[in-house]
Amino acid sequence: MRKIRLSIIGFGTVGRWLAEAIERRRSWLETEHGVAVSVVSVATRRDGFIHRDAGLEIPTLLELAAAGRPFADHSGVHRWQSALDGLAKTESDVLAEASNTNPREPEPALSHIRQALGRGTHVITSSKGACAAAALDLVALARQQSVQFRMESTVMSGTPVLSTLREGLAGTRVVAVRGILNGTANCILTLMAEGREYATALAEAQAKGYAEPDPTDDVEGHDVVAKVRILVAAAFGHALTPDQVLRRGITEMTLDTVQQAMRGGRRIKLVATVRPWPAGQSTGVGFLPLEARVEPLALPLTDPLFRVDGVMNALTVQTDTVREVTIIGPGAGPEQAGQGMFADLAAVAQA
Amino acid sequence: MRKIRLSIIGFGTVGRWLAEAIERRRSWLETEHGVAVSVVSVATRRDGFIHRDAGLEIPTLLELAAAGRPFADHSGVHRWQSALDGLAKTESDVLAEASNTNPREPEPALSHIRQALGRGTHVITSSKGACAAAALDLVALARQQSVQFRMESTVMSGTPVLSTLREGLAGTRVVAVRGILNGTANCILTLMAEGREYATALAEAQAKGYAEPDPTDDVEGHDVVAKVRILVAAAFGHALTPDQVLRRGITEMTLDTVQQAMRGGRRIKLVATVRPWPAGQSTGVGFLPLEARVEPLALPLTDPLFRVDGVMNALTVQTDTVREVTIIGPGAGPEQAGQGMFADLAAVAQA
Repeated sequence: MRKIRLSIIGFGTVGRWLAEAIERRRSWLETEHGVAVSVVSVATRRDGFIHRDAGLEIPTLLELAAAGRPFADHSGVHRWQSALDGLAKTESDVLAEASNTNPREPEPALSHIRQALGRGTHVITSSKGACAAAALDLVALARQQSVQFRMESTVMSGTPVLSTLREGLAGTRVVAVRGILNGTANCILTLMAEGREYATALAEAQAKGYAEPDPTDDVEGHDVVAKVRILVAAAFGHALTPDQVLRRGITEMTLDTVQQAMRGGRRIKLVATVRPWPAGQSTGVGFLPLEARVEPLALPLTDPLFRVDGVMNALTVQTDTVREVTIIGPGAGPEQAGQGMFADLAAVAQA
Repeated sequence: MRKIRLSIIGFGTVGRWLAEAIERRRSWLETEHGVAVSVVSVATRRDGFIHRDAGLEIPTLLELAAAGRPFADHSGVHRWQSALDGLAKTESDVLAEASNTNPREPEPALSHIRQALGRGTHVITSSKGACAAAALDLVALARQQSVQFRMESTVMSGTPVLSTLREGLAGTRVVAVRGILNGTANCILTLMAEGREYATALAEAQAKGYAEPDPTDDVEGHDVVAKVRILVAAAFGHALTPDQVLRRGITEMTLDTVQQAMRGGRRIKLVATVRPWPAGQSTGVGFLPLEARVEPLALPLTDPLFRVDGVMNALTVQTDTVREVTIIGPGAGPEQAGQGMFADLAAVAQA
């Protein structure tokens, strides 16, 4: 039985779900991959970085976290105030970086990831901001260090998209991608299609927990821009700045516009598009070969994204050999993001 | 650079596409996976099994195959009349088994696969019949030998489905699957929805090359039964006999029935369903915990399979953590099946 020592930075809903899944799927990990995963470090902003070479007790960690109590010192446990210091002074095989939920802010996740990769540790992460800002650099650093860097849950959470591009469609050349990549915006647009005004739909989504108290990143398209940058890095090997992605949100969408589209047999969706520049057109900022856009579009009934409603997300991938593959699934939620990280962990265990 | 010696059994459209892709994607295989793939053996029913330790020339093989000329003897090439003999007497790292297109007949593919796995050779295959009959045995044999056994292209060809179940959704428990898994039947039903009678639709599909001269396996559901057996092995770890899958084909479908469904806002599709037995119901043949069915169903507009038309296929997977994932993509064609085998080869190269 191989041993995998795991450090988890960020012990919110996603990090906890991952820890709980490791506990629950212990026998699956053993029989399927021949590995025993032990959580040796956990870091939170409040408690700092705690580490125990012999492994921490997951049920105890989950209990303390649920009760909002600090991780108690006990035999063999070391503590550092900063996660970076803790990472530098301890040994682990895989870092699960789940500290950062802001799509526009790479830190502190990016520093944690760089440090771990630099020390030859595999990294799996749900931190969108870090991946949006530096996915290509991190992939290159991981390759240089002969370790894996995986970020499945940053795009469509637990619905497998990045592994489909990388492994399922291995060897194909991606020509274009198009998707509905934000559950909050899609939920609001679905409620508007049922007759609500924007403000009512937003309030309802907030009441149901589908929208944050400050919904800016979701409704203004910043979250989708981060995902587009990650997809472009993963599928095309290009790094995009936020300015290279055209962005229009849904805050100015009116019920009238939504209903007008519906009378024409269309549905308005917040759509991300990455495609080669149309022939003969000037090629935009930075002479990139790709056009990347996030904007509300009125989709016809024949579009595979037409019926993707509520918190469901979808991605359509066109490649040279497999003409068009569409993946539809839930795009958010802690158990979804945790599942994406778990799949990344399994991929590391398999290699 | 690691070397991978590949044997290809079956050099029809799929085997040739794979060989050509290996040639075309040589630098991708080198940079992405650090491997150099060399085709050391090729076997066809007509020419027998030819092998050259130093590798065969792919362009020459493709030229001879395209011209229908026998593989010429040249320096260092050995030949056996039977592929089994050739496999027994030569060394390779991976067998690509593409000899068998019949979903109801496991041989000769099954013997080739067993022999290769038994000798510690990884196997990738597009041979549905062998996988339908013995997937679980082959997975167990591969595990015992510490090699990989992969069969991506047997279900939905190059659209990644089995790798999504195995790697993308790693660790989840599959609750149910449902899909449109035969391009020929779906094409005929799509033409009927456009107003053709069954016989006209079949003739049109045959003229376009979407249906075989003898379409029995596709229109009677045998092909989908084979795929259901493969999915049940892969997703649930159960072996099903053909008798344990309820099967109804589309040969008795009338234009009237199709149009009646459309007037009710529904579309008739040949649907494969695998799910737990409904509570309180007797549990069918063999006391299996699962019900498996292949039959025409009238799907409502809200069904994610409703708009999957023509030669497109789709699979919906329900799991314990990722509620529902749907994958839509092309389900047939030599370049699709070849792509599925290539993805399997890349997965072997990565591990």
